This record gives sequence, structure tokens and C-alpha cells, in this order.
Amino acid sequence: MVKKLGLLTSGGDCPGLNAVIRAVVRRSLTDYGAEVVGILRGWRGLMDGLMQPLNHDAVSGILPRGGTILRTSRTNPFVHERGAERILENVRRAGLEAVIAVGGDDTMGVAYRLYREYGLPVVGVPKTIDNDVVGTDFTFGFDTTVNIAMEAIDRIHTTAESHDRVVVVEVMGRDTGWIALYAGLAGGADMIIVPERPVSVQEVCDLIRHRHDRGKDFSIVVVAEGARLILHDGREVQALQEDEYDEFGHGRRGGIGETLGREIEAETGYETRVTVLGHVQRGGTPSAFDRILGTRFGIAAADFVQQGKFGHMVAIRGDTIVAVDLAQVAGKLKTVTDDYYNLARPFFG
Amino acid sequence: MVKKLGLLTSGGDCPGLNAVIRAVVRRSLTDYGAEVVGILRGWRGLMDGLMQPLNHDAVSGILPRGGTILRTSRTNPFVHERGAERILENVRRAGLEAVIAVGGDDTMGVAYRLYREYGLPVVGVPKTIDNDVVGTDFTFGFDTTVNIAMEAIDRIHTTAESHDRVVVVEVMGRDTGWIALYAGLAGGADMIIVPERPVSVQEVCDLIRHRHDRGKDFSIVVVAEGARLILHDGREVQALQEDEYDEFGHGRRGGIGETLGREIEAETGYETRVTVLGHVQRGGTPSAFDRILGTRFGIAAADFVQQGKFGHMVAIRGDTIVAVDLAQVAGKLKTVTDDYYNLARPFFG
Amino acid sequence: MVKKLGLLTSGGDCPGLNAVIRAVVRRSLTDYGAEVVGILRGWRGLMDGLMQPLNHDAVSGILPRGGTILRTSRTNPFVHERGAERILENVRRAGLEAVIAVGGDDTMGVAYRLYREYGLPVVGVPKTIDNDVVGTDFTFGFDTTVNIAMEAIDRIHTTAESHDRVVVVEVMGRDTGWIALYAGLAGGADMIIVPERPVSVQEVCDLIRHRHDRGKDFSIVVVAEGARLILHDGREVQALQEDEYDEFGHGRRGGIGETLGREIEAETGYETRVTVLGHVQRGGTPSAFDRILGTRFGIAAADFVQQGKFGHMVAIRGDTIVAVDLAQVAGKLKTVTDDYYNLARPFFG
Amino acid sequence: MVKKLGLLTSGGDCPGLNAVIRAVVRRSLTDYGAEVVGILRGWRGLMDGLMQPLNHDAVSGILPRGGTILRTSRTNPFVHERGAERILENVRRAGLEAVIAVGGDDTMGVAYRLYREYGLPVVGVPKTIDNDVVGTDFTFGFDTTVNIAMEAIDRIHTTAESHDRVVVVEVMGRDTGWIALYAGLAGGADMIIVPERPVSVQEVCDLIRHRHDRGKDFSIVVVAEGARLILHDGREVQALQEDEYDEFGHGRRGGIGETLGREIEAETGYETRVTVLGHVQRGGTPSAFDRILGTRFGIAAADFVQQGKFGHMVAIRGDTIVAVDLAQVAGKLKTVTDDYYNLARPFFG
Repeated sequence: MVKKLGLLTSGGDCPGLNAVIRAVVRRSLTDYGAEVVGILRGWRGLMDGLMQPLNHDAVSGILPRGGTILRTSRTNPFVHERGAERILENVRRAGLEAVIAVGGDDTMGVAYRLYREYGLPVVGVPKTIDNDVVGTDFTFGFDTTVNIAMEAIDRIHTTAESHDRVVVVEVMGRDTGWIALYAGLAGGADMIIVPERPVSVQEVCDLIRHRHDRGKDFSIVVVAEGARLILHDGREVQALQEDEYDEFGHGRRGGIGETLGREIEAETGYETRVTVLGHVQRGGTPSAFDRILGTRFGIAAADFVQQGKFGHMVAIRGDTIVAVDLAQVAGKLKTVTDDYYNLARPFFG
Repeated sequence: MVKKLGLLTSGGDCPGLNAVIRAVVRRSLTDYGAEVVGILRGWRGLMDGLMQPLNHDAVSGILPRGGTILRTSRTNPFVHERGAERILENVRRAGLEAVIAVGGDDTMGVAYRLYREYGLPVVGVPKTIDNDVVGTDFTFGFDTTVNIAMEAIDRIHTTAESHDRVVVVEVMGRDTGWIALYAGLAGGADMIIVPERPVSVQEVCDLIRHRHDRGKDFSIVVVAEGARLILHDGREVQALQEDEYDEFGHGRRGGIGETLGREIEAETGYETRVTVLGHVQRGGTPSAFDRILGTRFGIAAADFVQQGKFGHMVAIRGDTIVAVDLAQVAGKLKTVTDDYYNLARPFFG
Repeated sequence: MVKKLGLLTSGGDCPGLNAVIRAVVRRSLTDYGAEVVGILRGWRGLMDGLMQPLNHDAVSGILPRGGTILRTSRTNPFVHERGAERILENVRRAGLEAVIAVGGDDTMGVAYRLYREYGLPVVGVPKTIDNDVVGTDFTFGFDTTVNIAMEAIDRIHTTAESHDRVVVVEVMGRDTGWIALYAGLAGGADMIIVPERPVSVQEVCDLIRHRHDRGKDFSIVVVAEGARLILHDGREVQALQEDEYDEFGHGRRGGIGETLGREIEAETGYETRVTVLGHVQRGGTPSAFDRILGTRFGIAAADFVQQGKFGHMVAIRGDTIVAVDLAQVAGKLKTVTDDYYNLARPFFG
Repeated sequence: MVKKLGLLTSGGDCPGLNAVIRAVVRRSLTDYGAEVVGILRGWRGLMDGLMQPLNHDAVSGILPRGGTILRTSRTNPFVHERGAERILENVRRAGLEAVIAVGGDDTMGVAYRLYREYGLPVVGVPKTIDNDVVGTDFTFGFDTTVNIAMEAIDRIHTTAESHDRVVVVEVMGRDTGWIALYAGLAGGADMIIVPERPVSVQEVCDLIRHRHDRGKDFSIVVVAEGARLILHDGREVQALQEDEYDEFGHGRRGGIGETLGREIEAETGYETRVTVLGHVQRGGTPSAFDRILGTRFGIAAADFVQQGKFGHMVAIRGDTIVAVDLAQVAGKLKTVTDDYYNLARPFFG
């Protein structure tokens, strides 16, 4: 029976983090009588020994709040001198018998190495608004992001329609197009472009012209920031270079939307506007889906700790919580499949 | 290949109905070249021959709208003179080679009889905000309802806390507690009461007093309208009788919340207020989850028609669309299991 | 120059209270170098000496939050033994040179007596979701409440329309109908009933029938909880007695909506449902209007303190902040005028 | 008594337009028995004779919808051959005794010339999300825009705080800073920059550094798209040239935000992100405030027509509807005054 465990959040802001924290604390205290220590600012805090106890009061009222009460950072202990060693020392010093690490695929990678190479008893909880972690059907944060983007597209619809315009809406998604696909489907986009499949400007313009021929004088195109476009001369372009994404994997500036908008206007002659949703997509109060998924993940992580399922990540498949070996997660991405992309096709044009 | 099909919506209002309609029309027209005829006001419209063609324009712009452009009714053709026969005549007369029926478990029951006893080529699409249809993990409408209830609980939280009060929030759910469970989990309720498991007033009051002892001067109790309470004298009470639910299965008046609030105030002496969320829960613009699930169901229903999967209902299991035999659906209810209910326990008190 | 002042919030929860607190503190600290002491739980806290210093950090991040970080109560010091005297002692002991009291008309009454009879240098800030304080065009909280009620009516609209129903929506408002009037106007109600003018059931039913004759099979009636109805036998009824309102002036239970719904159904034969919005209306994050009005009131109150405008309340007239003598406010109510009520008439029926 | 009147909407999308249309129709039909003819696509439709009758049914259900059922355009009849003459012919041919024109200051200018030079009996209704029309305290659309921007800032807050970042939020406002000022105040911005007063990069950076010294590792700066910055070398820059604004007066691309973000990062070394809210700000369902103001303006415009107050614009001053001579409106802008800007100062830094 684990009587004392640590909990940290790492990586980018993601609605539902506080739900996880609250659930870990409530489950551990109430059902296992185990003490939870909050580690501040991710792996950095574990290297530096920044900790504070988490009791009922500390997690009271945090469920509807965005952000994470434990703060976050993107520190990788393996690039710091004696990073892993300092972590182990602090874990021992604080008397932690296990650590729960909430984060994206980088965090899962660090957790895996600490478990395998250093024997740290660690449980992972996947977290990304991009929904691209392998091994789990969904991650919390994604549903909130999709709803925010959908509401933006709803608003843009009335303006596009009143003004007879093409509007390009650029959403997050460097390597995978889940946000673009879901937000585009929910917002009724006339075309959706994801990083997984390059699209030619020609194809997009044909589709917009086809709509005009049917009497629809406006069109909405949703494009992921990492999407690739094929220009008229056959060149494939991507707006951002690797080093233009920040440490949380999101673009430092908009890009492909601007390019696409310019090409559409040049080719079709229709007035085109570009909206880059940006950081609005990743913060704020979580949706019900994300609060519940975060809560389920938190409960499961607390259970895994007591069951000794270390070296594993909590995940959801269908309706069931499962344990996924961290070895199968690190360094991989879940991309948009044909089946999913084809869901959107009947609504193009 | 089916070249002409009918589509009807039946039963109570449910966010996502227009997403289904739009998807059936777009998929059938675009990918199968099949014509879709909208049948107005559910089975009644099919008995009376109320129909109108549905083309691209008819379904343009309806995705974000609540309600159903086809209207609805709760007519059961089998209690009407020659109901089934009139339906068959109208189907033949209009040249419909198949019918898609969107509705709750009653509608699935009617669809099943028309298929089995009269040979009508029918495909069912499950629809209920209560999420209690067997054979499918989720129905559209549920997520929107849960989000509305959660936002209400969020708002009530600040008032309960400022005023040091117990607030009982009564949500929909005659036979099953899915809305109460999910909204309660997402809203951070201190106690959740579902129809599947009677709870004693004593237990609720103990829990509220325990919170006060911990310094929490407010509590929020979420209760489904169909929940049963065990009073001090051991009697089990339910607020509403069978005939107090309307034809859509929701209470004509609030009830159990009022009873519970009175008992809590009498027993604990704490000021207690009751809020009955009522019809606010079932209308309005759908959430992203419900727009996408409705869209997936609509596409699948159009596919089932072309594949000849009649007598079946579209359903989602995990991440996959499946066909469920209508025989397995009619007359059954998916109730809250222990596993689900136990998710909420660590947060009680 | 006042160097140290106290600040308290009193009465019911009201979106925008934290905006006032933040503005008083920022303005006083930044522009006057004056220290602000937060008094907990309204007048009770001033009687009992419950205080805590408020600096920049204390008010950081509170703007979007509902409730009040100072908590509240409904204590009237004049019904407590030596209440006023204890207040004066605590003010002296804490070195407060002025007190800002944020509250409803009762609070303004207490503030006025403390100022006039005991010489306490006090500035009032009006606060009520009901918008019925005389001397000011608007109070903060009202706009948020109206938006919440409007969104509920929007949602109810799709259900009422899909189900061909009459829906009665009961909103807050014991003595005045501002919430009913504004929410009804914004939500597109087909009839609005306010406490200021009794309406006969006959009139309401005629109007609903008239709509049906025009082909509108649904109607939405918005009624304030304190509204009076004239029955067929000429009797005028009100649902709640004086003692059925709680100490914050809002009904302990719904009432007039239920009566009205029953009468409409009996008289017209149309299916009628009743929704009592209840406590959902008064909490949660404030609208932009209320955050800005709260901020303006807070800045003005801090200015009044420095200008020595004691015995006055901040108020807004048109676009201008003005000082209103507390003597003109206490014990009065701003009721719905004919001019305002007539705005709604063209939309009835 | 005017028995038949025309109604047109002109210029950019603006939440509340449908509220005006509905109110003009209901008031005219119900209280004056006057017929309302809808003119499609603004002045262009009046030149081309595009009209359709507007009855009760036509305006039923439009109140919560964004956009305008009459569509819009930005056509100025005075730059078209015989534009004014064709308008007069169409007005005569359709038997219109008056025209209500809803639009921005350009539209008010056209209306004024048609009234003065051609004797067209016209009433103006001001419309702009920028709130910069002189003669009226508020225009509808503004409150919705401010709420959208505020919600975006709320969401950005949790991310900025979790990531220790400076975030620059660029909002609409070419010539005036009302949106920036109100959204910044409501969203709790740490600095607000409006077109009316150039600010030096130095000042912004000092303020951000000052926050860091106080332990606040994140800052949010709200900037209007038309704002001017003073660089280190004393040059004053504006991002967009005159011809980079579209015909609705809003920037074709973001600009000044990008410049400001770059300068802040270079100067302070703090990680800085830029979000351009863009077209999301101007569409979608209107807030309660805008629905009510639009309704009041529509009723007043219908009244003005019957009272023969031609050559005037409806306006609101304080709580009262007034008639403003169009001669006093055309070609002017209401800018942010010192009094208003100073409201925000206590919250800077």
C-alpha cells in the first residue's frame, strides 16, 4: 500500500488538468488514506524539490478552473546535469513511494526512462489538446478546444454569409489534424485541411467555385497550422519551419492560413479573409467531457499507484479505462485515419 | 441501390437532430445520388402523407440550430386505426425504398414492428438526452444537456458559497441517472442521487454535516427527477407517479428535489434551496460532441440504407459505428452501473 | 487625505462584486497610496472585527469570478445589542478613516443611519441583480442575470416550438419586473408579466389563442416571481406571501408560474410547461457590462472617499458617475414605468 | 400617416440587426397598420429594386440570429451612374412613403444627402460594433463584440499564467479604441493601447518589467488594430496603411500586435505571443444588451417615420431615445476621451 505519492503536471496548458489533480487527491485520501504531495512546475520542480502538500482544501473549487494549480514547465531532466539523480534524491527525501506525471508525449517519454533506467515507480496520465497520443481514444482538453473553435466558426459563419466572403480559419495542430477535423465537422466547414494529407490550392478553389455556382456566395475553410499545400507549380509548402513552433508544439505565428487565403483570392477573385484562432483555443474553463475524462484519469492513476501498475499510462478505450505500457507510447503520434477524414467528405463543397 | 428514401424525427426535442438530417441528405445525395424525402412530424406525418423533398439548400445552415426542421410528434401508429397500413400506402405512393427513423426507444419499438410484421425497410437512429438506449455507448443530445446542467451548477456554486447554503439541483432522468451522474461529476456536486439506487435522507444529511464539520458551509446535491428517497420511517418515496410524466418521459413538475430540500432543512437546520433545471436542459444549439455524433449517425444511417442493413439501429461502441438489431433494443433501458456510480463516490462529502 | 479605509460587501450574491473590490483596492493603492482593509461577511464582520488587509495580490485574478472574496451576510447591526457602537469601536481600533459599503437598499439604509446618527464616514455602492435601486440607471449584476435568463429562453424556444407547447418561464423579481421585462424582450417572449401591473388570465389566454390562430402553435410567457394574476372570478392572486421570500428578497419556492401554467392549460387546453429559473440567475462569472460597471463604481467609491463625499452613494446616470444622497435612496424602489413596459407591447401575441 | 415604408441594412455584419428589423416590422404592423417592405443588400438593392414584403412570419424567430435577413452591401449610390435617381424611381414605383436605413456613418452620410438633396423621407439607425458614431451613447453590436473579446481574454489568461508569458491581444478598432478599452477593462488587461493615444514601446516594457518585479510572470496587453506605437528611435508606426482596411473599415490582416509582440520580446527577453481576434468578434448571436438596444432603435425608427422626423437618426442618451439631425453625424467619429481612458489606468502594471 502506497502511503505517500507525488503528483506533477508538465507541458502546455490544457483544460482538465485541475480535474485530474482533484481526483488524484480525493481518491488517494478518501479511499486509500494516502497522502499526496504536489510537485510544482513539472519535472523542474522535482529536480529542485519544489513541493507542497495537497489536502481536501487545496483542491476545493478548482474543478471549473483552467490552468493547473501546480503550474507547469517544459523541462526535460535528461538534458540537465544530474537531472535524473536529483529527481531520485528528492523523491527519496520527501518519502514519495510513487509519482504520477501528467503530460504530453514528451512527458511520457521522460516518465518511461525514469521508470526503466532508474526504477522510479511512475504512472503516466496523457494530456494534450491535440488528441494525438497513441493508446487512448481521447485525451482531456481536446473537447474544450474543439468547442471553442466551433463557436468561433459559428460566429464567423454569419459574417461570411452577410459579406459574401471566403473565410480561412486556422486552428492548432502541427503534426495531426484532429482539432481541424472535429472543429470543421462541428462548425459546418466547407473544406477541412489536415497535416496528414496535402491538398492542392486548385482543389480548394474548384470547390469554392462549385459552391458559388450553386448559389452559395460564401465558404469557410478550416486549416490546421501544420497543413501542407500544393501550389500551382507543384511545390508543396508548409508555413512554419520546425523552429517556429514553441516548446509546447504550437506555432509562434500563424502561417499556412495566410498563404492559403492569398492563393484563394488570387485564383478565384473572391474576397477572402483569414482568422487565426491561436491561444484562445487552449485555455479557460473545461467542458463537461473534459472535466469527467480528467476526473476518470485521476481516479485511475490513483488506483494504478495502489495496484503497483508502474511504467504504465492510464488511457480510455471505448468506455473502459485501460493501462498502456509507456514503452508503446513514447515518441509516437496518433494521426487522422482515412476513416475519420472521410467523415468530412460529404460536406465538402 | 436505393434511389429514394424517407427520413423522420420522432419524440422529444434533442440537440443534434438537425445534424443527423443534414448528414443523411448530404451523404445520400453526394455519394449515392439518392433522393431524400423529409417526413414531417414523425410517424404521424408518415400516416398522413406529410412530406417534402430535402435537397442541399434545405439542410444548409441547420447544423448549429436546436430542434428539428422536420418537426416531431409522439404518435404511435399502432394505436391508430390502420396506422401501419396507411404508412405502407404512403411509402409506396411516395416511392420510398427505405425509411430512416430517428427517435427514442419507443420509436425503435415501432420501427422494429414495422420492419418485422410489415416488411418496411427501416433503419433506426437512437436519440435521447437521457443516454439510456441500450446497444450504444452514447446518444447525441446527452453531452449538450450535461454541459447546460454543469454550467448551471457552476453558477449555483458561487451563490451557495457566498450564502452558506445547501442547494438541491434537480435534473432530468425518470428511470436512469446518467444526466445526474455526469452533470454532478462535472459540476463538482457533493452528493449525487440517481433513480437506480435509493438513498436515505439520513445518509445525505450525515454527509452535509460532515462537510460543515470540515469547514464547508455550503453543499450542492444533484438529484434526478425520478430518484427515490428513504425517509426516516423507512418509507421509500418517489415524487412523481407514472402519469405525472409527459409523453416525452419527463416530469410535468419538479418533485423529488422539493421533498429532499425540505427534509434536509428539517433534519440539519441548514438553509436549503431547490432549483429544478427543467426544460432549459433539452433545447438550444448542440455541443461539438453532439453535432459530430449526430453527423456520424446520419452518415451511417445513409450507408446502412444502401447496404440493406434494415431492421437495425446505428450505434457507437468505443470509437466504432456498429449495427444493432432492433430486436435487442426495444423495451430496454441502459441503467447506471456500479462502476459508473462509484466514479462519483470519492467526491461525496 | 484618507490613508486607510474599510470595505465590506453585504446582501445577496451579485455578479460584479469582485470587480468593485478590485477597483477600490487598485485605485486607492495606486493613485492615493491609501491602504484598504477588507471586512468579512458584511456588517456582521464590522461588528465582530473580522478584517484582513487587501493588497494587489489579494485582488489579482478575481475579476472574472462570481461571488465575493469578502463573503457576505445579511446582518442588520441595528437589531443587535450595541451593534452600531461595536462598529464604531472596531472602526476606531482598526484606524479606518472611512468605510465603503457595497449592498442593496437595506445596506444603504444601514449606511445612512450610521452616517447620520453616528457620524461614520461612509460611502455606499448599490448592488442588486434586480436593478431596482433609485437614483441610478443601472446596478451591476443585472446585465448578467438578464443574459442568463435570455439564454435559457433561447433554449426553451426550440423545445417549445418542436413540441407545440406553451412554456411559462418564471424569473426573479419580487417587487419589480426589470428582469422579466429585459429578459422577455431579449428572449423574444410572447407575453411578459411584471409585479407592477396585474394581468388577467383571460388576457394571457386570448393572446395565446390569437397566436395559434396565426399558425403559431407555441408561446413563451415570462413572469416575475412577484407578479399578480387576476383570475376569472376577479380575485387577484400572488403566489408567495411576504414570509416566503428569503432574507435576500427572493422566493423560497417558485409559485406564480405554476399557478399561471395551470390556469392557461385549463382555459385553453394547450399543453403547458413551467420552468422556474431560480438561483441559476444570480451567480457565476459576470458579463462585460457588469465587470465594467462594477469597476467604475469601485473607482468612484475610492474617489468619493478621498473627496470626503460621505453619506452618498455612487450611481450612474446616462454615461456619468454621480453622487446620490443616501437619504434619497433608503426605503425606495425603482419600478417599471409605462414607457418601459410599452417597449414590449408590440411583441405580445 | 405613413402606410408603407422600406427598410434596408447596409455595411458590415453587426449583432442586433435582426432585432431592429423585427422591431420595425412589429411596431409598424401592430401599432400603425403600416406595411414594411424589406430592401435587399442595402443601397444596392434600392438602386436595383430588390424588395420583398416583411410580415409577422418573416421576422419570427430571427431575434437570436446573427447577420441580417435582408443581407447587406457597402454600395454607395452616389458613385453609381444615376444612383440617387434610380433609388427615387424605385421608391416611387414601390409606393414607399419613407425609408429606414440601418448602417454606419457612411450610410448616415448617404441617407443625409438623399434627404437633403433629393427629398427622400429617410430615418437613420446607427449601427457599428466600434461604438464610434457621434450623437449616441451606444450602438448595438458593441456589447456583443466586447463580451466575445472578454471571453477570449479570460481564456488566454489561464494559458498566459500557466506558461509565464506576455500575450498581446489585438482587437478591432481602426480609428477608435472603444473595443480595446472596454474589452481590456472587462478582461483585466495589464495594458491597453488605443488609436487615440500613441504609446512608446519603452512604456509598455517598463510596465511589464514592473509586474515581473512584483512577482507576476505573465502580462496581457490589449491593442486596437489601428493603434500607433512609438519605437526606440522615436519613430511612430502604425501597422496598416489606409488601403489595408477593407470596405467595412476593418484590417485585412493583423499588424500592430505582431510589431508590438516582437518589440516586447526583443526588449524584455520575456516570451511573448500574439493573438489577433479578427472576424470572430463581429458575428453570432447578440447579447441581451444588443438585442434590447436594437429593439428600442427599431421601435423608435418606426415611430419617427410616423411622426415625420425625417433627416434624423435614432440615438440613445442615457436612458432616453432621442432624434439626432443627420447633418450632425455624417463624417464624424466619437473618440475615446481622457475620462474614459483614465478608467483603465489604475489597472495598468
